[in-house]
Amino acid sequence: MSKIKAKYDVIIIGAGSSAYACSIRCAQLGLKTLCVDNLDTNTSSGAFCNAGNVGMITLLESAKLYDTLLNDIDSHGIFAENVSLNLPKMILHKNKILDEINHNVIKIFAEYKIDFINSKASLIAPKIIELSSAHSPSQQIHAKYIILATESIPITIPCTPIDNEFILDSTAALNLTKLPKRLAILGAGVIGLELAAIWNRLGAETTLLEAQETFLGLSDNQISRQAYQIFTEQGLELRLGARVISTKIINKKVLIEYQDADGTHAIRVDKLIVASGRKPNSESLSAPEADLLLDENGYVHVNENCKTNLPGVYAIGDLTLHGPMLSHKGMAEGVFVAEHIAGIGSSSINYNIIPNVIYTEPEIAWIGQTEQALKAIGDRINIGIFPLSINHQPKSVINANGMVKVIACANTDTILGVHIIGCHASELIAQAVLAMEFSASSEDIARIIHSHPSSAEALREAALVIKNKGLNS
Amino acid sequence: MSKIKAKYDVIIIGAGSSAYACSIRCAQLGLKTLCVDNLDTNTSSGAFCNAGNVGMITLLESAKLYDTLLNDIDSHGIFAENVSLNLPKMILHKNKILDEINHNVIKIFAEYKIDFINSKASLIAPKIIELSSAHSPSQQIHAKYIILATESIPITIPCTPIDNEFILDSTAALNLTKLPKRLAILGAGVIGLELAAIWNRLGAETTLLEAQETFLGLSDNQISRQAYQIFTEQGLELRLGARVISTKIINKKVLIEYQDADGTHAIRVDKLIVASGRKPNSESLSAPEADLLLDENGYVHVNENCKTNLPGVYAIGDLTLHGPMLSHKGMAEGVFVAEHIAGIGSSSINYNIIPNVIYTEPEIAWIGQTEQALKAIGDRINIGIFPLSINHQPKSVINANGMVKVIACANTDTILGVHIIGCHASELIAQAVLAMEFSASSEDIARIIHSHPSSAEALREAALVIKNKGLNS
Repeated sequence: MSKIKAKYDVIIIGAGSSAYACSIRCAQLGLKTLCVDNLDTNTSSGAFCNAGNVGMITLLESAKLYDTLLNDIDSHGIFAENVSLNLPKMILHKNKILDEINHNVIKIFAEYKIDFINSKASLIAPKIIELSSAHSPSQQIHAKYIILATESIPITIPCTPIDNEFILDSTAALNLTKLPKRLAILGAGVIGLELAAIWNRLGAETTLLEAQETFLGLSDNQISRQAYQIFTEQGLELRLGARVISTKIINKKVLIEYQDADGTHAIRVDKLIVASGRKPNSESLSAPEADLLLDENGYVHVNENCKTNLPGVYAIGDLTLHGPMLSHKGMAEGVFVAEHIAGIGSSSINYNIIPNVIYTEPEIAWIGQTEQALKAIGDRINIGIFPLSINHQPKSVINANGMVKVIACANTDTILGVHIIGCHASELIAQAVLAMEFSASSEDIARIIHSHPSSAEALREAALVIKNKGLNS
Repeated sequence: MSKIKAKYDVIIIGAGSSAYACSIRCAQLGLKTLCVDNLDTNTSSGAFCNAGNVGMITLLESAKLYDTLLNDIDSHGIFAENVSLNLPKMILHKNKILDEINHNVIKIFAEYKIDFINSKASLIAPKIIELSSAHSPSQQIHAKYIILATESIPITIPCTPIDNEFILDSTAALNLTKLPKRLAILGAGVIGLELAAIWNRLGAETTLLEAQETFLGLSDNQISRQAYQIFTEQGLELRLGARVISTKIINKKVLIEYQDADGTHAIRVDKLIVASGRKPNSESLSAPEADLLLDENGYVHVNENCKTNLPGVYAIGDLTLHGPMLSHKGMAEGVFVAEHIAGIGSSSINYNIIPNVIYTEPEIAWIGQTEQALKAIGDRINIGIFPLSINHQPKSVINANGMVKVIACANTDTILGVHIIGCHASELIAQAVLAMEFSASSEDIARIIHSHPSSAEALREAALVIKNKGLNS
């Protein structure tokens, strides 16, 4: 904990990835900066900086390795006996990595002379926040600018009360030290699917219950269909249109009742993970007298420059309705707001060009618009699809699931969307983002020389399909 | 084998990756196409299409997996006993993947109605090639255009005569079925390093003997230095300035004598792999009376459109001195020449923007110019370096070696070079290639939103370093 100064240029409430990026940029621009958040220092590590996301990916890496050992090494001519899993050690490994990141953040904050206070904080007026902690009297701190960055928290559902013993939230779901034989996950959205990718691979029979009738409705439908097929083949049980109506703990099992089009069903599992979405973490963010404008769902109202209705008060990241709830969106806003305050004005965030990533295996990533959205507004488009099974990258030959889909405007050939399911999708999407930022055409991508062999050249191949269609028409 | 037609629009001599890409593009553009090459159908698979490269990467994947099993699973909380290697099966696995690619190529050729003949072929005059095989009389075939694409072959050295039992060429080096206890590799260039990455990981004590005093002289020096350090830490013995002067097979071992600045030394190894570079495969490519112009090293002379001195005769890929000996360079030329012939003129290849990749672990990849080359010509540049150990991608936290280095013009901020050593470098370089094709500035990269966490955002971080230097100066 830092010694609090009398006055700051900027106070940032929150210590997630948006706050982290914003704090550093403020400090780089010479602003005296305080970052304040109420971190639970008892639960292990990763309090700073997008801990959930990194924890998820770390566990998935371990789970993939375990799965490879059980199922894939044989074909490589590698043999091992008595492969076994020490789950507490795997969790510890994950926490160790989060700790490292945490220490790194603390070190970087110190280097940049960013003060950090571990305390509850709320906005009580423009330029004033109030710290309140159990151990000391409440205290007010002043700053020219205040940036709200408390991100989001899981949505709770009355019929699935979290006890973190049988019914878990998504944080507890990353800290299970005993493998459940049967597991249910409420919600087949991004977080539900990422958790399922981990636990299914580690050996839990996993059922996903999704209230929506459509699977991954925000993704391009063709990608969603392939994802559904791949995940099902991997052994995930995906039940769509399934609305949970009650849960009971009986004999250390969770009895879940749900309804779908066929009627009412019940399943009995060892653990239930609730991953039914997130909401802005704005409940105790500001005192009523501060008059901060929120909508009925708790989102902070901001303009295109992330300014709230209060002078000098900004909100970034998951707190606002602008763009998706993704850490890189919040980080970009954090940098933007810092520069805006410092008066080295950069252009506002282009919310149309923010990559979406789902860290499953295979990964799913996309940028821009979907085929269904473009067709719904009547746009004439060209589509190029390249199945990754044809790619010469041996990793893909082995794990050949997936495709790259490029959508371009039929008139101008400008790329309107790129959709990927497959190995390395989270990395491959970077060139698509860059291409869209430069208003590249599909022909531009088709002409650019890509390393061979690499997964990256699949984007070029998909673009070539569009080019060749033009040739034959 | 196809039935030979009386006349073709295009004949392509060679069946490597350049020839493959060129054949398909010719066929797509409606040209009646014959591809002819003298494939050794006895040796296993992968005759088509860059077999060496894919075979290398496939074996490296297997070797990495074996290495992970031996050294890294423990930290993940995964345990296995009696980990062992069945090398013949590992080689078989690699060959199976090459076979799959081969079958795929044959299928694609059939779909596109590209004829293929397995035969020796040589150019005897513009528009005429002669086939010669042991089984049938020689035969002449005519075509409007002839494209030479026989790629390259290993350079042989008198004092290291290849017997493929003790002294191996780079092809035999991918088919060892017994692990050598001690291995020497002659040449620490791309192929030598890639082979070392495989065999060192599988457990061979590996020594690289490099005649040059500098290590990876073509790469950016800073990357080369880090590569040297990483590879040495991995247990590779790298001896620079070491010129082999004699080899003897004694008691089923290879006794190698070499000279360096300190004098003459000898080492005794089980196998010696010769990887001392490649030369154009042009020896029996054309009959003397065809008058094809070659230089003293056997490179075919071509102009900026890949045209040789003979009308209607082109040469692509490793046969020419244009650009590096990399499969994607040849593939790009193959597509370009096909379009040139079909008259749908595209612009010539930009040889300044061809990515270089070394498939070691970590991988090395770069595009554009090096710091030393730019400084040598007196250019004022800005440099941004981001060490991958800081990146939040957990894969990188675990395997944190490496860096991304962005070089930009000090006046215009245009990116002049990007140099990467690290996990996924072969994929990450794709966005750098795209950026350079669009003459992007380092600030462009710094402003583009990258998925978090991903390895790809390291490029943005390196660009940010340049941006922030500008801030403080």
